[in-house]
Amino acid sequence: MAKGSKKKKKDKSKNEDKKKHDVKPARKAAAKNAEKAAAKAAKADRKAAEKAAAAHEAAAAGLLARRDAVADLLRVAPGFRLADVDTGATPGFDGSRRDGEAALAAVGAELSDLQERLFAHGRTGGTRSVLLVLQGLDTAGKGGIVRHVVGLVDPQGVALRSFGVPTPEERRHHFLWRIRRALPRGGMIGVFDRSHYEDVLVARVDDLVAPEVWERRFDEINRFEAQAAAAGATIVKVALWVSPDEQYRRLRERLERPDKLWKYDPTDVDVRLRRPAYEAAYQEVLDRTSTEVAPWYVVPADSKWYARLAVSALLHQALAGLQLDWPPADYDVDAELARLDATR
Amino acid sequence: MAKGSKKKKKDKSKNEDKKKHDVKPARKAAAKNAEKAAAKAAKADRKAAEKAAAAHEAAAAGLLARRDAVADLLRVAPGFRLADVDTGATPGFDGSRRDGEAALAAVGAELSDLQERLFAHGRTGGTRSVLLVLQGLDTAGKGGIVRHVVGLVDPQGVALRSFGVPTPEERRHHFLWRIRRALPRGGMIGVFDRSHYEDVLVARVDDLVAPEVWERRFDEINRFEAQAAAAGATIVKVALWVSPDEQYRRLRERLERPDKLWKYDPTDVDVRLRRPAYEAAYQEVLDRTSTEVAPWYVVPADSKWYARLAVSALLHQALAGLQLDWPPADYDVDAELARLDATR
Repeated sequence: MAKGSKKKKKDKSKNEDKKKHDVKPARKAAAKNAEKAAAKAAKADRKAAEKAAAAHEAAAAGLLARRDAVADLLRVAPGFRLADVDTGATPGFDGSRRDGEAALAAVGAELSDLQERLFAHGRTGGTRSVLLVLQGLDTAGKGGIVRHVVGLVDPQGVALRSFGVPTPEERRHHFLWRIRRALPRGGMIGVFDRSHYEDVLVARVDDLVAPEVWERRFDEINRFEAQAAAAGATIVKVALWVSPDEQYRRLRERLERPDKLWKYDPTDVDVRLRRPAYEAAYQEVLDRTSTEVAPWYVVPADSKWYARLAVSALLHQALAGLQLDWPPADYDVDAELARLDATR
Repeated sequence: MAKGSKKKKKDKSKNEDKKKHDVKPARKAAAKNAEKAAAKAAKADRKAAEKAAAAHEAAAAGLLARRDAVADLLRVAPGFRLADVDTGATPGFDGSRRDGEAALAAVGAELSDLQERLFAHGRTGGTRSVLLVLQGLDTAGKGGIVRHVVGLVDPQGVALRSFGVPTPEERRHHFLWRIRRALPRGGMIGVFDRSHYEDVLVARVDDLVAPEVWERRFDEINRFEAQAAAAGATIVKVALWVSPDEQYRRLRERLERPDKLWKYDPTDVDVRLRRPAYEAAYQEVLDRTSTEVAPWYVVPADSKWYARLAVSALLHQALAGLQLDWPPADYDVDAELARLDATR
């Protein structure tokens, strides 16, 4: 047990007195050697840390230099065809998995700083926010994005919401009711794990509502998102896209690993069998709801590390695009310094 | 831009063909040297990574071996006196700040694993949860705990709630109404940034309610927490304790740094002036509400790194104490493997 600092100092001076009188030459030499070794180890540590920091910075700079290129490559433009996506590709990033993981770790500090600026903005009355919408088929890696990308920033500044099967109360309302209530307040990064898009995806594929109902939802969604954007939200919509083969491997892994059994749901196979219908539904979502203020990004997700890196780049772009400075004081700083000093 | 894997392979074999035919000896030697250097760098990287991993493991093991000792030293026992706390001490940990930071980073992976077990337990109907209550005077470091300790685990498994001045709606209800609604569901780590204890702290110090009102709240709180514990919550209550001098330095820093101005509030100085009253109120909270099922831990917090490390140890103890295995499948694994394979 470490003691209070006063106590420690006393012990130390006692030990030093002891050393002067008792210690024999052999012990002295041993102590000197140990000191030397410790100093050498500390120097090596320092060097390793410096090297690692430099590597991190370089990795972050490398990713950030390509950030806008990554976003441009992934953004859904007119004529985009989901069927043409190479789910194993890594658009805009030609490094290895290891490079990608290093770049993600490195970009964390940047994201964290930008997120804190946004949070400070919200605390001082600002209305800007970021909304990250995550969609994707089972096993596409939405959870991994939350854990490994959203997890890079302060949990205080994140409003995470998962949208599952609507509750009886939610069902009594318009499909956007529960979504509107979950929009991030000023200063927050809102994250939707699934979203209102399920109301034109599973609702359509499983015939939960009549075609004329889901059909008109596209316009309702576009209006809703335009309002949210006008109110201050920067909206980033991400569809994580995995191949049927990769999905097979991931589902198989869930069935084979004791620590993943809980993630498997027998309906996953049923959904898998309806993939063509889901692809058609996703294609229409992308065709009809990728707008200037709420664009879709389709992220190839067979490489988990790439998907995480790409989403970190999109999040970075959204946060940096707000161009937020630290808010100025809304009180008299000099007067407060004087008040504070008077309490010493 | 990187291409899909097929395309890549093609390019590579083309390059190899080229090499065989065109490359001149000088270029060949240069390429060989570059390869050698790259291999050497990769080897050094691997060694550094191995060394770092070993150091991390050792740091984690070191902290975890002392985990229960740290908890025992910080737990409030009968006769505990807040006035005797050495706010600069690091009970149970005799390493440096750097050792402490390494140990915290290392314990992150452990916390993350335990948190995921808890989450899996919740997803399969389990009712256990962990509730971390954070209290402390202004600048005590509650926000840093959220960012640097709670931030170590998956945001999906965290329900964070800040309790500020009650809203008009909250004021119309019993003081525990908003608290009860914020209790974590099964599988979650709930984090209260301030809590129902403000109703016997600021409410008392600022005379917001009559003495007979806050006086009876201690029993109400104990009953409430006992119920929450009986319903499955492991409750860990942390009071972060800073010295007046350290608080002065932190407030001064907020006034001096442009990136911290937004964190300062002129009422911080008013609260600081009432410190004796707060200390008395905290002492009574600790005397009357540290129970077997909901103990208080007073964490010396002048060293931010120590406070974070200590809370990570308390959180680790709470999570590990649940002794949760990965939940078994509630479906027929072999049948599902067969169903899945049929979809290939």
